[in-house]
Amino acid sequence: MSSKPTLHTVLSPRLLDIYDMPNSIVVIIDVFRATSTIATALYNGAGRIIPVDSVNKCIELGKLTGGITAGERDGKVIEGLAHGNSPAEYPRSFIEGKTLVLTTTNGTKLLHMALNNGASEIVTGSFPNLSAVCEHLLSAGKNVILGCSAWKDRFNLEDTLFAGAVIHNIKKYFTIHCDSSLMAEDIYNLHKDDIYSFIRNTTHWHRLASYGLEADLEYCVTADVANILPIYRNGDLVAHNR
Amino acid sequence: MSSKPTLHTVLSPRLLDIYDMPNSIVVIIDVFRATSTIATALYNGAGRIIPVDSVNKCIELGKLTGGITAGERDGKVIEGLAHGNSPAEYPRSFIEGKTLVLTTTNGTKLLHMALNNGASEIVTGSFPNLSAVCEHLLSAGKNVILGCSAWKDRFNLEDTLFAGAVIHNIKKYFTIHCDSSLMAEDIYNLHKDDIYSFIRNTTHWHRLASYGLEADLEYCVTADVANILPIYRNGDLVAHNR
Repeated sequence: MSSKPTLHTVLSPRLLDIYDMPNSIVVIIDVFRATSTIATALYNGAGRIIPVDSVNKCIELGKLTGGITAGERDGKVIEGLAHGNSPAEYPRSFIEGKTLVLTTTNGTKLLHMALNNGASEIVTGSFPNLSAVCEHLLSAGKNVILGCSAWKDRFNLEDTLFAGAVIHNIKKYFTIHCDSSLMAEDIYNLHKDDIYSFIRNTTHWHRLASYGLEADLEYCVTADVANILPIYRNGDLVAHNR
Repeated sequence: MSSKPTLHTVLSPRLLDIYDMPNSIVVIIDVFRATSTIATALYNGAGRIIPVDSVNKCIELGKLTGGITAGERDGKVIEGLAHGNSPAEYPRSFIEGKTLVLTTTNGTKLLHMALNNGASEIVTGSFPNLSAVCEHLLSAGKNVILGCSAWKDRFNLEDTLFAGAVIHNIKKYFTIHCDSSLMAEDIYNLHKDDIYSFIRNTTHWHRLASYGLEADLEYCVTADVANILPIYRNGDLVAHNR
């Protein structure tokens, strides 16, 4: 009998509650762009990021904490908030030591669902912090759920691609009886050498590139450029072991 | 602007209602084994197949219609029913001219969901009737939803593989802005030349092969061996144009 921990991939928030949260580390994945921006802001020295699921709560917590409010809809900063979802907006010169209050459509929603389903631990992942995620999952030795945020509950390729990258790196240390994970690794292996051209085929690329975000999107699929582990603690995402 | 109809792939029954049913032909896909068995029984001359979502309804309709009751759980015929889910149980010598009342875990459930969501037309597909499905979708010229039955709402590879096969054959006649469809075609292209070995990696194979169903499962991924189009009409699945 195998004593390896299990690994599952969840392709849409709507499928999350099928899986066993309380015994698992859940990795929230929202490559375009929430979890890429979260890694980047913490890597560049943000003190903490407060993920919130509504614009009103974002404004309210911004006032309460003195934090920077951020959120976009359709590629534009939401009225009443100060900044957007782009990782490029959060260089060290701007974000170091500050609190970021962030609302996003898909990633924040999945994070709160994982929390409400009693996840044992929540971290966030995207290509900019791929290695940090893999190292943490290997050293923790617990069951893993790779949670794709998807787009309005629809499956998306970029989150699946990242799940596949994680699986590709750590699979031999896990028991994987999960077709979503087998598929994700297939997709990653098929496209790992042409990621920049592959993402141009995704529906999300077409949605966001029309707002002039090509460079942003390419950054979001570049490995280890903000290699830190965001971990959820008492309402905040903070850098693990800093 | 393109005037081609759209094509979407739905990876789990839980995601079905995201999509626009009333203007679409929905293809119900349950490769292991409901829609493979449905194609086979109709190809071998069954008069009609009544798909039902409970064992009690199966028994009741069996009595009412004089039909053959069929259904399995965990690879065994359900108590109170006469036959199982295997396509091999329905040769012409047995099924010709008869009514089959069939209950299955995943495929029947998705069919009734599509019906309740107002699908414009419902057909069923699996590898044994791949060409018949493709030809029908091409000649109908309507929007298409490829509905994967999945396994207890979890994504599965074999239904996705069939969706990919359909997409591979008909994509140039449709507008496809759907990451699930792009993924499905990738998976099909990656494995179309090694389907028999590929399906041995799926979780469903491991579940069913332990019941000695290997030959059954290989049949279910063999193209065009029961090339007929099952179409839903007033409670029955019947052969289209027969």
